[in-house]
Amino acid sequence: MATPDRKIDLNRLQEVCDEIAEEMMSNDEWGEASGQSKELAEIDTHQFGIAVYTAGDDLIASGKAEERFTIQSISKVFALTLALEAFGEKVWDRVGREPSGDPFNSIIDLERHKGKPRNPFINAGALVTIDLLLSRKGKAESVREFVTRLVGHKVGVNRAVANSSKGGGFGNRAMANLSKFFDNLNHDVDDVMDAYAEQCAVMLSCKELAKAGDYLMVEGADSRSAAERKRAERVRRINSLMLTCGQYDGSGEFAYRVGLPAKSGVGGGILAIAPNTASIAVWSPGLDANGNSLLGTMALARLAEKMDWSIFGSLRRR
Amino acid sequence: MATPDRKIDLNRLQEVCDEIAEEMMSNDEWGEASGQSKELAEIDTHQFGIAVYTAGDDLIASGKAEERFTIQSISKVFALTLALEAFGEKVWDRVGREPSGDPFNSIIDLERHKGKPRNPFINAGALVTIDLLLSRKGKAESVREFVTRLVGHKVGVNRAVANSSKGGGFGNRAMANLSKFFDNLNHDVDDVMDAYAEQCAVMLSCKELAKAGDYLMVEGADSRSAAERKRAERVRRINSLMLTCGQYDGSGEFAYRVGLPAKSGVGGGILAIAPNTASIAVWSPGLDANGNSLLGTMALARLAEKMDWSIFGSLRRR
Amino acid sequence: MATPDRKIDLNRLQEVCDEIAEEMMSNDEWGEASGQSKELAEIDTHQFGIAVYTAGDDLIASGKAEERFTIQSISKVFALTLALEAFGEKVWDRVGREPSGDPFNSIIDLERHKGKPRNPFINAGALVTIDLLLSRKGKAESVREFVTRLVGHKVGVNRAVANSSKGGGFGNRAMANLSKFFDNLNHDVDDVMDAYAEQCAVMLSCKELAKAGDYLMVEGADSRSAAERKRAERVRRINSLMLTCGQYDGSGEFAYRVGLPAKSGVGGGILAIAPNTASIAVWSPGLDANGNSLLGTMALARLAEKMDWSIFGSLRRR
Amino acid sequence: MATPDRKIDLNRLQEVCDEIAEEMMSNDEWGEASGQSKELAEIDTHQFGIAVYTAGDDLIASGKAEERFTIQSISKVFALTLALEAFGEKVWDRVGREPSGDPFNSIIDLERHKGKPRNPFINAGALVTIDLLLSRKGKAESVREFVTRLVGHKVGVNRAVANSSKGGGFGNRAMANLSKFFDNLNHDVDDVMDAYAEQCAVMLSCKELAKAGDYLMVEGADSRSAAERKRAERVRRINSLMLTCGQYDGSGEFAYRVGLPAKSGVGGGILAIAPNTASIAVWSPGLDANGNSLLGTMALARLAEKMDWSIFGSLRRR
Repeated sequence: MATPDRKIDLNRLQEVCDEIAEEMMSNDEWGEASGQSKELAEIDTHQFGIAVYTAGDDLIASGKAEERFTIQSISKVFALTLALEAFGEKVWDRVGREPSGDPFNSIIDLERHKGKPRNPFINAGALVTIDLLLSRKGKAESVREFVTRLVGHKVGVNRAVANSSKGGGFGNRAMANLSKFFDNLNHDVDDVMDAYAEQCAVMLSCKELAKAGDYLMVEGADSRSAAERKRAERVRRINSLMLTCGQYDGSGEFAYRVGLPAKSGVGGGILAIAPNTASIAVWSPGLDANGNSLLGTMALARLAEKMDWSIFGSLRRR
Repeated sequence: MATPDRKIDLNRLQEVCDEIAEEMMSNDEWGEASGQSKELAEIDTHQFGIAVYTAGDDLIASGKAEERFTIQSISKVFALTLALEAFGEKVWDRVGREPSGDPFNSIIDLERHKGKPRNPFINAGALVTIDLLLSRKGKAESVREFVTRLVGHKVGVNRAVANSSKGGGFGNRAMANLSKFFDNLNHDVDDVMDAYAEQCAVMLSCKELAKAGDYLMVEGADSRSAAERKRAERVRRINSLMLTCGQYDGSGEFAYRVGLPAKSGVGGGILAIAPNTASIAVWSPGLDANGNSLLGTMALARLAEKMDWSIFGSLRRR
Repeated sequence: MATPDRKIDLNRLQEVCDEIAEEMMSNDEWGEASGQSKELAEIDTHQFGIAVYTAGDDLIASGKAEERFTIQSISKVFALTLALEAFGEKVWDRVGREPSGDPFNSIIDLERHKGKPRNPFINAGALVTIDLLLSRKGKAESVREFVTRLVGHKVGVNRAVANSSKGGGFGNRAMANLSKFFDNLNHDVDDVMDAYAEQCAVMLSCKELAKAGDYLMVEGADSRSAAERKRAERVRRINSLMLTCGQYDGSGEFAYRVGLPAKSGVGGGILAIAPNTASIAVWSPGLDANGNSLLGTMALARLAEKMDWSIFGSLRRR
Repeated sequence: MATPDRKIDLNRLQEVCDEIAEEMMSNDEWGEASGQSKELAEIDTHQFGIAVYTAGDDLIASGKAEERFTIQSISKVFALTLALEAFGEKVWDRVGREPSGDPFNSIIDLERHKGKPRNPFINAGALVTIDLLLSRKGKAESVREFVTRLVGHKVGVNRAVANSSKGGGFGNRAMANLSKFFDNLNHDVDDVMDAYAEQCAVMLSCKELAKAGDYLMVEGADSRSAAERKRAERVRRINSLMLTCGQYDGSGEFAYRVGLPAKSGVGGGILAIAPNTASIAVWSPGLDANGNSLLGTMALARLAEKMDWSIFGSLRRR
């Protein structure tokens, strides 16, 4: 529909990122740290970082863009990518692709739909996605290995966060058991829970996360192979899921205010994609009522507005 | 984010529309006519039309593109536009903007959310939107008058369809009463129901509908006024709602398969927007399980693929 | 199972009623008047009455036992009796007989069960019951006429309460429309609503209500006719429904604390039955969170305890 | 309210039981064996037994009344008795006492009520009850030991059934985890699940079960101690819970048809109580759609009718 906006004015983008970082740090409200684990609860919420990786392979950043945080639910995007690569459209026999209309940890929908989660970005859907990944043959890549490949160097795991999730996580454990009750989980609940805890505890900085999201930009290439084309189509579909389901119960609101496909995590990070143009990572650990980074969301809205990056229409004549 | 694709190859677009029309007419499945009223139930489902109105003001069409049909729920887009013009963001005090996760006529969400509909594109949300429109002062434009202005000539109403909706519509009447119970409907239920029946029964052809959707394209203009800019931003947000909520319970699926903001109606019409590029209308009266035109959805998927019109990323290098 | 306790010590019963009336009037909490209509909201909640009509046809009373109040939902018992007489077990094709587990005005269950109300004592069930009554042929008795016959003299209707229900009642109107949407209401919603408003506004005193409940006592008679036996069996089943469903969402609690079949109304009245033994009416207009008379419930618990009148077992050896 | 019917005609009762056993064995429908475990699924459904233990300590039986079966959910009555003895009314801080309105294994209500089960007779409620029992100090009696004491000799456990429940039971495990998520389960899920599997697998015959239910009859004694009186009141309340919640989603129906407090199990057994009169056990492994013994329910309806044993009113004059 539209030509990639390759000629981004990098000076302007740096300026915009600096303005946003400054504005965010002087904002009155910071949101609440996640109560999901002791490690997350104790973090200083008065922090903000932003990084933009462009289609032209430039990296612009501002604020605490090198501070690492656990990616938490952002890992669901990477897990889904691996599942779609391994199983293609068969993934959708096991998990739906409709927005949920219920808070992210709700088990109600799961029972109503007989153990088939509404989409891969609510927790129940992530557990079934992991169950699929565990079914792959041979030396299949883990989410952590995949992210390592994307970033270009080995990424670490926050062991304390991973372990506290392994021991607890009773809400997720309830959903895993319910999926198993409905025959939609093939592996041991403990194995699925462990893999989930592991991928959620992967640590990335904004700079690393923006780079990891590079593959979601869908860069056009007329000469590409059928396999490459297939991958590009798949990426486009992942973007559509991020748009409709990526921010839990606040996905509609986010699409309305920001207008970009994105996935948030309770660690305070958000990965957003401006198709054909940029992969964006923001981080600020204070959350809003829906569990999304309060300042992160605000910063993305500001960035999209200032750069005229909405998938729902460009305002500027060029 | 992206420059408008103004240089559409019109010959290629005509060719694509013709191919699609032919393919649709020879498809095996046609879906079921809506059972919502006698008038809709008796229609011949073996019909298809498509029309594309471009940013360059060209109109390309194929199939039964001049056959008129009742726009039904597509009218919700026009009603929302009027409500946003009159009340701005205050609209969202009365109706939400999250996908529903429930079938389009579900009353369950309405009670759970104390009479506040999840979004303006489910029936309950449309009723509250109309209630807002009835509160405007003076000679405020009706949906029918608005569409008349957009199309450029007077549009008619299918009286039989409108009347059968006025007498019946017990599901909608239940929702209007429930909203009133929760003090979220100020006017008489009968008045709201009548206005709803009237706007749903507006008759347009694909050519007319595509032209009516012109304003949703968001055409860029650096020199525009503050008011024009505000209107463009508003349009972009309407597009986001069409993307997340426009196809009832099949919105996620539609975004995944087609990748364009769109609104369907049980009359078999769908209006879709390729931002900055084109306004598209398709029509075929047979519906799928979610109440969306079966062939219309298929045709839009094909068009988006062939023209590379997805908001989630362009595949071609240009 | 048990012989009727015909030899009630009437002096003792009078003493118990007096004690209870005194205790209730000096209780600290009175509950809240119903907000359902202006007429109900303005009543002085600091009032209490009790009357017991025995199997031996004696009438014992204390407190404001001659003050009239609108019977409201207690009328559902009389309506169900008439419906069962006219249609027998076919009533259960149209309405269920399971406890609801949801607040009394909930529309959620109604949609989940496709317009078939869970039981005849929630509002939706009462509306369908009335719809059945309106289908009877000829000069069929209205609820008001039935109550007139039971009491032995003409009973009045509180016109102001009836009229305010007719104009409003949007929650009930929503349920009537939803039942009609699912083809489980044959008459005009307005006609059903009017009949409902009328029966709810019937005015009785505790003395009258206790006498009206006489027929629910199931008096044994070996020599009775087949028709009489059938009626006695039917009454027993009405009692079972009062026990499981008679106090809205507080039915389980009421059975646990009081142990008698009973039906409450938002007017503050409760009719309770000690099978083979007594028909009991209490009244106090202050309601608890479930919409049942706060002091009325407390008084019944005290009466059942002092008289050893629980259907779940007699504590005394006799 | 009523004097205990101690002078049961034992010859007549034997006759009635024999008639019922014969009628049941020649019934056309037998229901379906439970699919809950391999052991239950393989049982011959064409079996029936009945036993009645009277207030006068006589035991009448017919059919396969000495065949042992796993008591399954009937154990919930015994567990609740122990919990009420240990914690009194504090039990109700952890579990509700309202009918559920949802199938027995529904997790929806549990989330809506923030981990507090609706009542102690749905599975979620039984798990919380067990959690309470595990909190008792010292050498507290297990359900199995309690039943042993009630029956008068050591009772066994079906090890195969217990083990298959321990390994599986994913639906229950989901509920236990969800209760734990909401801080309404103090012990390890595995420990609670094991105790649950153990009590469900206790094996009793109809004769043994009827005797075990003796204590639920509430035998009156004017001269009894305060402790005995308290126990009798407690038993009465357990009966009320059996009446309103004892047959899962079919409790209202059962109260309507049979009119006695009862608790069923998927092993095909039902324990019913005629207060002050008799403790009744029936068994037939074929289940109806609600998971209650099809013939067992039918047999109890017949027995209650023939003996005039309904808590909702005696038909005979005596």
